[in-house]
Amino acid sequence: MTELLTPDQMEAALRQIGEVRYHHLHPFHQRLHSGGCTLDEVRAWALNRYCYQWIIPLKDATLMARMDDVVLRREWRQRIVDHDGEIDDAPEGGLRRWLALTDGVGLDRDYVTSMKGALPAVRFACDAYVAFVRDRTLLEAIASSLTEMFSPMIISQRVSGMLKHYEFIDQDVMRYFGHRLTQAPRDADWALEYVKTHATTVEMQQASLNALRFKTGMLWCQLDAIEHVYVNGNPCPGAWAPGQALAA
Amino acid sequence: MTELLTPDQMEAALRQIGEVRYHHLHPFHQRLHSGGCTLDEVRAWALNRYCYQWIIPLKDATLMARMDDVVLRREWRQRIVDHDGEIDDAPEGGLRRWLALTDGVGLDRDYVTSMKGALPAVRFACDAYVAFVRDRTLLEAIASSLTEMFSPMIISQRVSGMLKHYEFIDQDVMRYFGHRLTQAPRDADWALEYVKTHATTVEMQQASLNALRFKTGMLWCQLDAIEHVYVNGNPCPGAWAPGQALAA
Repeated sequence: MTELLTPDQMEAALRQIGEVRYHHLHPFHQRLHSGGCTLDEVRAWALNRYCYQWIIPLKDATLMARMDDVVLRREWRQRIVDHDGEIDDAPEGGLRRWLALTDGVGLDRDYVTSMKGALPAVRFACDAYVAFVRDRTLLEAIASSLTEMFSPMIISQRVSGMLKHYEFIDQDVMRYFGHRLTQAPRDADWALEYVKTHATTVEMQQASLNALRFKTGMLWCQLDAIEHVYVNGNPCPGAWAPGQALAA
Repeated sequence: MTELLTPDQMEAALRQIGEVRYHHLHPFHQRLHSGGCTLDEVRAWALNRYCYQWIIPLKDATLMARMDDVVLRREWRQRIVDHDGEIDDAPEGGLRRWLALTDGVGLDRDYVTSMKGALPAVRFACDAYVAFVRDRTLLEAIASSLTEMFSPMIISQRVSGMLKHYEFIDQDVMRYFGHRLTQAPRDADWALEYVKTHATTVEMQQASLNALRFKTGMLWCQLDAIEHVYVNGNPCPGAWAPGQALAA
């Protein structure tokens, strides 16, 4: 019989999911930050991961549209500001910063933003995230954002590893991640408090834990797809192929 | 400049997509029907593919809910009858027949139908199909069903290959496919005529072709995920593992 957890036990249970399911454990992450990737593998990752960047503000707007409390909406809208930036790009947002990375690895920007060459599995995982925050309870939707508790760890490894190992990567190209190092913990702290406070029944706690499991799965399977196609060499009909869509 | 195709050219263009993108080309299909799979690989396939079987009638109901023509709805509802069968299982439907296969390979039926052990990538692909028929035009929704034009080919290979190569497979276990050999062509003929007749502009024709590309991608990436995890040995946290959930 599952028992009601204290807020501290709830936090521990959420962190435990990260320990065993977050993609810091994924072989492609290890490969990427340790310098084992070819340029084309980094391109495949940057190109596909753009789809995830792309849906983040759509996901956040979908989630905000379900908040009937202005205080919650004010809190959440900062995430959209962070990703979309200002219209004149000053300051630029996370989406624009991600394009510094795809530019940096030589991909044609129009091709990247068209998402035409992205893997279907990656598109479907991203769409599943938007559907999740639309269709589940607000508590589950907020809980699904809690992978941000774990991202600072992966980001520091990634930035230092990629700067060290790849000649085509420099600080400017990686600037997306610098900003996420301050944004993610702020967002995660707020969402964690929300979940600990509002998950007041066993069912709500279990649903929140499952929401985080869902989210780790949607991140994990994106790396699986990239690894299968671009590291293990199983071409996907219609998706980007190495050598394709390079900037002139 | 893309030109308007004649109905015959449209059919040829649709068939061409099957030639290059349908999963008869996928290495896992080859492996499955040629006897190269272990029992656990066949289990992984049957377990995950249940998710696809599961969403087919949901997809068809979603599509029917958008048809404001009773003639169309009457045509389409046969698909739901085929998959869901009758309440007393006489005749049984495709979903029930699929369970003959998962039973036959020794999987616990409650575990299979819970879909708890399915790969996230497979779940997301299936959900994407339901979302597609809900959100796109009715023409695109119908066009996305046209992979049924190609399925008789794959099914005959699969049935004969699997009967020949696997001792744990017999005719009764494979009975799902026998029925599909008559159901799929009937459905495909109708949908093909619909698309050829109703795609009357370049835009509608291109959208229909893209709908079929989408569908081949959602089928392909399911096999990619299964191959990556269960053939190439990259365990997915939380998903079914070989040896797990076998019938008592």
